[in-house]
Amino acid sequence: MYIHLIITVAVSLIALAVAALFAREVLQADTGTPKMQEVAAAIREGAEAFIKRQYTTIAILGVVVAILLFLVYVIAGDLDTAWHTAVAFVFGAFCSGLAGVIGMWIAVRANLRSAAAARTSAGRAIVLALRGGAVSGLTIVALSLLGVSLIFTAFGSNPQETPFLIVGFGFGASFIALFAQLGGGIYTKAADVGADLVGKVEAGIPEDDPRNPAVIADLVGDNVGDCAGRGADLFESTAAENIGAMILGVALYPYFGVNGILFPLVARALGLIATIVGILAVTEKGAEKGSPMDALNRGYYICAALATLFFLGASYYLFGPAYYLWFFAAGLVGIILSIVFVHITLYYTDYTHRPVLEIVKASVTGPATNIISGMSVAFETTAIPAIAIGIALVLSFDLGVWSGIPNGGFYGTAIATMGMLATCAYVLAMDTFGPIVDNAGGIVEMSGESEETQKKIARLDAAGNTTKALTKGYAVGSAALSAFLLFSAYMDKVTEIVQKTPSMASYVFNVVNLANPVVFVGALLGAMLVFLFSAYAIRAVGETAQYIILEVRRQFQDKGILAGTKKPDYASCVDITTRGALRNMVLPGVIAVAFPVFVGVVLRHEAMAAFLMVATIVGVLMALVLNNGGGAWDNAKKFIETGEYGGKKSEAHKAAVVGDTVGDPFKDTAGPSLHVLVKLLATTTLVLAALYI
Amino acid sequence: MYIHLIITVAVSLIALAVAALFAREVLQADTGTPKMQEVAAAIREGAEAFIKRQYTTIAILGVVVAILLFLVYVIAGDLDTAWHTAVAFVFGAFCSGLAGVIGMWIAVRANLRSAAAARTSAGRAIVLALRGGAVSGLTIVALSLLGVSLIFTAFGSNPQETPFLIVGFGFGASFIALFAQLGGGIYTKAADVGADLVGKVEAGIPEDDPRNPAVIADLVGDNVGDCAGRGADLFESTAAENIGAMILGVALYPYFGVNGILFPLVARALGLIATIVGILAVTEKGAEKGSPMDALNRGYYICAALATLFFLGASYYLFGPAYYLWFFAAGLVGIILSIVFVHITLYYTDYTHRPVLEIVKASVTGPATNIISGMSVAFETTAIPAIAIGIALVLSFDLGVWSGIPNGGFYGTAIATMGMLATCAYVLAMDTFGPIVDNAGGIVEMSGESEETQKKIARLDAAGNTTKALTKGYAVGSAALSAFLLFSAYMDKVTEIVQKTPSMASYVFNVVNLANPVVFVGALLGAMLVFLFSAYAIRAVGETAQYIILEVRRQFQDKGILAGTKKPDYASCVDITTRGALRNMVLPGVIAVAFPVFVGVVLRHEAMAAFLMVATIVGVLMALVLNNGGGAWDNAKKFIETGEYGGKKSEAHKAAVVGDTVGDPFKDTAGPSLHVLVKLLATTTLVLAALYI
Repeated sequence: MYIHLIITVAVSLIALAVAALFAREVLQADTGTPKMQEVAAAIREGAEAFIKRQYTTIAILGVVVAILLFLVYVIAGDLDTAWHTAVAFVFGAFCSGLAGVIGMWIAVRANLRSAAAARTSAGRAIVLALRGGAVSGLTIVALSLLGVSLIFTAFGSNPQETPFLIVGFGFGASFIALFAQLGGGIYTKAADVGADLVGKVEAGIPEDDPRNPAVIADLVGDNVGDCAGRGADLFESTAAENIGAMILGVALYPYFGVNGILFPLVARALGLIATIVGILAVTEKGAEKGSPMDALNRGYYICAALATLFFLGASYYLFGPAYYLWFFAAGLVGIILSIVFVHITLYYTDYTHRPVLEIVKASVTGPATNIISGMSVAFETTAIPAIAIGIALVLSFDLGVWSGIPNGGFYGTAIATMGMLATCAYVLAMDTFGPIVDNAGGIVEMSGESEETQKKIARLDAAGNTTKALTKGYAVGSAALSAFLLFSAYMDKVTEIVQKTPSMASYVFNVVNLANPVVFVGALLGAMLVFLFSAYAIRAVGETAQYIILEVRRQFQDKGILAGTKKPDYASCVDITTRGALRNMVLPGVIAVAFPVFVGVVLRHEAMAAFLMVATIVGVLMALVLNNGGGAWDNAKKFIETGEYGGKKSEAHKAAVVGDTVGDPFKDTAGPSLHVLVKLLATTTLVLAALYI
Repeated sequence: MYIHLIITVAVSLIALAVAALFAREVLQADTGTPKMQEVAAAIREGAEAFIKRQYTTIAILGVVVAILLFLVYVIAGDLDTAWHTAVAFVFGAFCSGLAGVIGMWIAVRANLRSAAAARTSAGRAIVLALRGGAVSGLTIVALSLLGVSLIFTAFGSNPQETPFLIVGFGFGASFIALFAQLGGGIYTKAADVGADLVGKVEAGIPEDDPRNPAVIADLVGDNVGDCAGRGADLFESTAAENIGAMILGVALYPYFGVNGILFPLVARALGLIATIVGILAVTEKGAEKGSPMDALNRGYYICAALATLFFLGASYYLFGPAYYLWFFAAGLVGIILSIVFVHITLYYTDYTHRPVLEIVKASVTGPATNIISGMSVAFETTAIPAIAIGIALVLSFDLGVWSGIPNGGFYGTAIATMGMLATCAYVLAMDTFGPIVDNAGGIVEMSGESEETQKKIARLDAAGNTTKALTKGYAVGSAALSAFLLFSAYMDKVTEIVQKTPSMASYVFNVVNLANPVVFVGALLGAMLVFLFSAYAIRAVGETAQYIILEVRRQFQDKGILAGTKKPDYASCVDITTRGALRNMVLPGVIAVAFPVFVGVVLRHEAMAAFLMVATIVGVLMALVLNNGGGAWDNAKKFIETGEYGGKKSEAHKAAVVGDTVGDPFKDTAGPSLHVLVKLLATTTLVLAALYI
């Protein structure tokens, strides 16, 4: 076993141990009043029931895919690849699923503790929520790293061959991620839309009101969508991008030996250490002062600074003094891009800036102008990110080229991606902080805690909304930056397969000629898939929401429920949402997996590369449209609720509620699912490359 | 002068003469009551005032661009190209502008005659409106053909060189088209949204109610948007695609001589004859029976059948017996694609099918679900068209390859485009039929004609809405199919320029490698431009509508206006809309022209090709989203207005009105402007190719 792998395995195990300690700390905290415990139990049961059924469905689909994968390669006569790929797929899927379950398990427990703590100390509530989030973040990154390290070792540790054998791991992870994000995203927004439309709009009761039968389903949704979904998304990122970068490292073997191939894993391990330090830097005392966002940011900057330093060290030791500066600079490009993305996201979704205020103003003339204005903002948000990605890609590529190493360019983009992902675990912790405090808010409100506690938790909730939006920006940015690395890995893989035929030993697949009509059509169909997938994801929310609307209306016919004298049947709403979300996630999911395979088999590998590339471009831009558009609508509503333009109950507010509802499936279902789609396409093509030649 | 050109010039002149005869027939028809004349005069004056100011603005921008074009080539040391390009640009712009003015001039007169005729005979009203439309259709296609023929002759008729010299003509035409479509599109929808929001929603008065101060502006908008805008769009198509196809013909010179280069013009001339026959086939007697759509379709099918026959003949005579079948088949692919597109458009926007009914159902739960469902339908509409385009492109390319002629593939896609555009003049006549009968409806309603006349004209109006939607489908299809032809022309042009350097004489630009990061970034920025441009086009409508809303509210403060005792000040609304539309068209227009040039200069010709190709892909898909989404929302509202789901004034109807309003800037401003953008990008790169090398 290489020393690098010993380090990564050791660090992964340490990170898991730290996660266990954080979990113990959270679990030992005060669990509040019986009323709070009762609400939290309902959320916990709903979430766990959903996850159980969701993973059962996914497992069935996964087994089918694993068998198909195996058969495809057996029929192609490559038994060796067949079992390696199938085993790696199952192992990747298992690790991703396990990480998701652990993250969720702690999130639905941390919410209650954070709520209980908020009664006495906001600082303690922040720390508990962040440590709860850190359990999720550390587990996800550590399991991904551990999984790749172990399977690399198990499959023989041959530096030049093994990276190609483990691609199934990334595919397994993306497969889980797609369904976790889709199912969770549909669940959370269907419950939200359903609860709001009947509760807020028709019955006129406030959000999180215990009389609303869908309120628990809504709170469950925050966990299964934002927490489990985004966790699976970033598990996939770390896994697939590590493997892709390792494949690119193979081409540099003559220069860096195994160092180039294992650098991605070492960099990730160091990122884990930086994250642990960052999390520990957020103390109760510190969090008590200033805004919650300040406390979270302090930890983030410490983590980022440390990660940069570690990156420099790792570059020096693994690439050597002659080359390290070029690749460290490429990594720095990635780190800077992640910060730029966060600021762009803030500009477009925060109500202190022009875009959201434009939507607010348009709300005065009704829902139609609110939507028109929001769509215009949503489309506009693609511009600066696209330019930033363009600069980052070309710059990191050029840095790699300037190193003077052949094929250094593509490796440069890979290193930039590693830089961007260095702080991944911390970002994930902040992301999971969101649903935890959101839930804490719901628990506090439903259990009738004091006005003061509600206010305290509301400030945390606002910070959580911000971190959720920022993580989405981060996830899009990483999907975009990693694109090149994954394309190149696909092209290297095709080259590797074709070269096995003796007469083609000198073939190199390095041109994707868009001027060839078949390739152009591949690109056209790639772009189309993004639109079609978005259509089905959005529709799935609409359809599932319909079931909930009918159920809530049915329960409201019992006058006792609205009067507050009778407890609504929360469980039936949870159950209906669960079944609806699982049923409706299948069609978009299957299209996302099957359509590219169909196109690849018919149009072959060059067209498939164009399909992948243009789908990535359009997927990233559309994800920005949907995420930022939804975020802007959400905050336009929140701004009006602060009392501007007539405040709550005004016509402007009603219009803004429509915009917010429209934005819900955009920003929490279709948008995040698109990040996953983009990466799933990359891992599918990578795994099935042999079919397209 | 080649015999081909004598034919095309002769046919163009005949078509113009026929257009003049149709115009005389329309002008001599009965002009109805003084009340009707008064309303029509207001529309006419508003439209003519707008067009005058719009073309003044465009002329200023055009002169600036012409001077820049000239200077760029002078600085590059190519005085010959400099003046040829600048002159061709100005001439193209002039012909496009002239065609637009003539089409508009007759449309704002035919509306009154059609309204007057509707009092006695629906058949007569149809014939007058269609002939009015035919004046526009024939003039546009004939002027485009005449212009290209004349400038080709004037610039020396050298079959292998002149096609490259006249590309400025196409650029001039697209430049006009962009601003005509943008300005007209902003005008029409700002007026519509403004009139509806204050009139229908706030004051509760019906559409086209004479008490609404914005009603005349709304009727003016139909002319300047649908009529002048789409006219300029298809003028550009015929001009730019003719020139592109001629350039591709140059490569086939060794096989077909000048025949290959001039085939596109001959095919267009024959299409004009087919159109004249088709228009004449729609008689008063025939139109009286059956639905209005049947009458229009009868003419269309006669035109299409004749055009196909002519295409076969032209292929035989110009390509010779050995090759003609391959290229005729390619033309047939284009003709079939145009029919397929029409049917797909109908499926997605007609309320007898699933997509619109889905939106209708979602309207019951309010505006938010209406919008969510509509967006889902809008995104979905990209799928089948993309597959159809893919098949048509590959098939027509393969047919060209199977002919056995080198470079025959790209020429095959060019011939398919020629096939699609064969019926262009008839389609344009049907399209202009739309605003004419829409206006006739407004005139009848505002002048208080009988219930029966109103009903008669309403049926025509419904047919007009259908033809407008279908034309948009046709325009998108032609933009998509012509894409390849225009890319190839650009690549040929780059090759031609580079080969002038002796050391590069054997260079051929035929690879656009998307795996090259700079090229990939070009593609990314191309996709982004489509989103950014859509954002600005949609925002322009919102901003202009705000001015009108304020003005209508201001006038409504005078109680006499709503009571019907005092005439509102229509002219001030017309004036405000005009100024707003012209001001707000500049930003998106300038970005559309300037951004690609910037990208091309920085990233060079290969990245520019990728920019163009991916912008085309995303532009076409986004145009489908916006056009069909808007059309579906519109018809969902109309379906409810037939009395379903509670009919007018129900909650479902209110929700559907919101969807319809959101769809307005999508389908009539941003969507149609995207067709033009896609073609403008192609002509810009073609003209400025020298800058990007």
